Amino acid sequence: MKIALDIMGTDHGPKELVLGAVNAVKAYGCEVVLVGDEAVAKEWLAKYKALDNQKIKIQHASQVINMDEHPAIAVKSKKDASIVVASKMLRAGECDALVSAGSTGAASVAAVLCVGRIKGVERPAIATPFPNQKGTTVVLDSGSMVDAKPSNLVHSAIMGSVYAEKLLNLKNPTVGLLSVGEEETKGNEQTLATYPLMKETKQINFKGNVEGRDITNGSVDVVVCDGFVGNVVLKLGEGLAKAIFTLIKEAILGGGILAKLGGALIKPAMAKLRERMDPNAYGGALLLGVKAPFIICHGSSKAYAITNAIGMAVKFTENNLVSAITEKIAESQKRNEETDK
Amino acid sequence: MKIALDIMGTDHGPKELVLGAVNAVKAYGCEVVLVGDEAVAKEWLAKYKALDNQKIKIQHASQVINMDEHPAIAVKSKKDASIVVASKMLRAGECDALVSAGSTGAASVAAVLCVGRIKGVERPAIATPFPNQKGTTVVLDSGSMVDAKPSNLVHSAIMGSVYAEKLLNLKNPTVGLLSVGEEETKGNEQTLATYPLMKETKQINFKGNVEGRDITNGSVDVVVCDGFVGNVVLKLGEGLAKAIFTLIKEAILGGGILAKLGGALIKPAMAKLRERMDPNAYGGALLLGVKAPFIICHGSSKAYAITNAIGMAVKFTENNLVSAITEKIAESQKRNEETDK
Repeated sequence: MKIALDIMGTDHGPKELVLGAVNAVKAYGCEVVLVGDEAVAKEWLAKYKALDNQKIKIQHASQVINMDEHPAIAVKSKKDASIVVASKMLRAGECDALVSAGSTGAASVAAVLCVGRIKGVERPAIATPFPNQKGTTVVLDSGSMVDAKPSNLVHSAIMGSVYAEKLLNLKNPTVGLLSVGEEETKGNEQTLATYPLMKETKQINFKGNVEGRDITNGSVDVVVCDGFVGNVVLKLGEGLAKAIFTLIKEAILGGGILAKLGGALIKPAMAKLRERMDPNAYGGALLLGVKAPFIICHGSSKAYAITNAIGMAVKFTENNLVSAITEKIAESQKRNEETDK
Repeated sequence: MKIALDIMGTDHGPKELVLGAVNAVKAYGCEVVLVGDEAVAKEWLAKYKALDNQKIKIQHASQVINMDEHPAIAVKSKKDASIVVASKMLRAGECDALVSAGSTGAASVAAVLCVGRIKGVERPAIATPFPNQKGTTVVLDSGSMVDAKPSNLVHSAIMGSVYAEKLLNLKNPTVGLLSVGEEETKGNEQTLATYPLMKETKQINFKGNVEGRDITNGSVDVVVCDGFVGNVVLKLGEGLAKAIFTLIKEAILGGGILAKLGGALIKPAMAKLRERMDPNAYGGALLLGVKAPFIICHGSSKAYAITNAIGMAVKFTENNLVSAITEKIAESQKRNEETDK
């Protein structure tokens, strides 16, 4: 198993990514190819005493795509950008999966242009695991297609179901369409047009519309929405969780000596909870709908998140998610063609 | 000051609404007119020993609009529905403001059809106060227009600014357009078309795009989005806060005897925090853009929320929000006309 890791264009620089790779080869026994500036990669490998680690290779790439560049223009013009080089390696089978923490937009474009879409999938979707009261909700799309057609949402539902089944081990996972009310008649133009298509899709266990609160109470396993709504959901979720923990800390510190003592006593329990809710525990989101395992991490990912993302890439590959998605999408297309006849 | 309270069509029945009214006349010194089934209203007033309270009147209405009815059809066909009767009283000046906890859809339709829109406002918006790390963020629209045009969002920005200034006492409140990234070029079709209009609008202090996390970190005072996104934001926010507090309780109870002791010690501090984050403390959301103060509460509101909503209606009226909005909208329309010339 060989994972390509794009080490360029992130918030904290290659330092955290190289450390994440060093830890990942120990944890998962996979190989990692660091894609980016060779001199920089070697410098950090030396610092981490991993220069002669046989499981870590380097693939030089002379260019970087930064966060503020236009994704499509940058991917097309910078042929030797690390994300482009890594994507081409993935396409050529020189690695099994790819992990990137650079510009999400550039990664999505490189995935489509250099790796290619699964047959039938018009647009890939980013699937993000969201901790809920009981376990995990898969939310997709969380930022790839900010304007989506109903057929895009149906594909997201199919791909998210495969993810939930194969990676989260959920049997016959339930799917909800994110809307403003549970009734079929509630929603905006997009969801009203999507609902009947979802109902007809045999490849998913569709439970109807769900609301914002269902993401956190775990009433369905997969929540489908467009990339605009999904991105707002994701960032609000992270922001709100952070805000609440900060407010709790402030309340305890400002609550007198007994509250402070209480705060000290609950620390271990709270630490465990924070860990369970930490988005870094998953490391990254899956870009579903492309022909090979593709993982997208936060630009601000630190070593811990990168190690976990590489672990996820290993699982993604071992569980043959791409073949399973290819099959289910083909099945649904076939059905549609038969209905059209 | 006289507030009409629609006591019908809610989840917990008139019981909680009548109690909310009894407490509100004590707290705010206003009069309340209970609109709905007279016999039921009297029955509950008797139970609360408030039958001879001179500040509480009853206006009989023989029909009810239920949550599952089509709003527009129901409002047009049920001429004696409590929300229709209350809205007509508001239009006729027989009361100063209206509070409803029935179907939000029906209330919005009744507001437009029976009370009327402020000149220039195509569609009213629901403004919901959202607790953030520092104070309060006004989020609008939170469910009135699930598909919105850019001009609707601009009006929401103007109306939300007036709300933040007049009711939350914020000077020159800042406005953010909810999107997937801070850059002007990030967003979906709707927000990309809205951004330049916002920038030109002199009636608001526009700070550009904001992301989901900005709703909770208080980086702007007013966050503008369409009613679909706003509704998801609101329900996710409430659901996530509830989920986190439940998880904390579970973590403490499952954390051994010391954690349990700690939990007991932090209880007062946590109770204060929960109170500050309780959406019932505001009681309701404001329907902005109609010709008179109109407050919409959760269908599940209990007496405490209703009392607070009546308090908000009093403040809404005393601060002349409607005139201020009318003025600002007229100003912005005038500017547009001048630019068109």
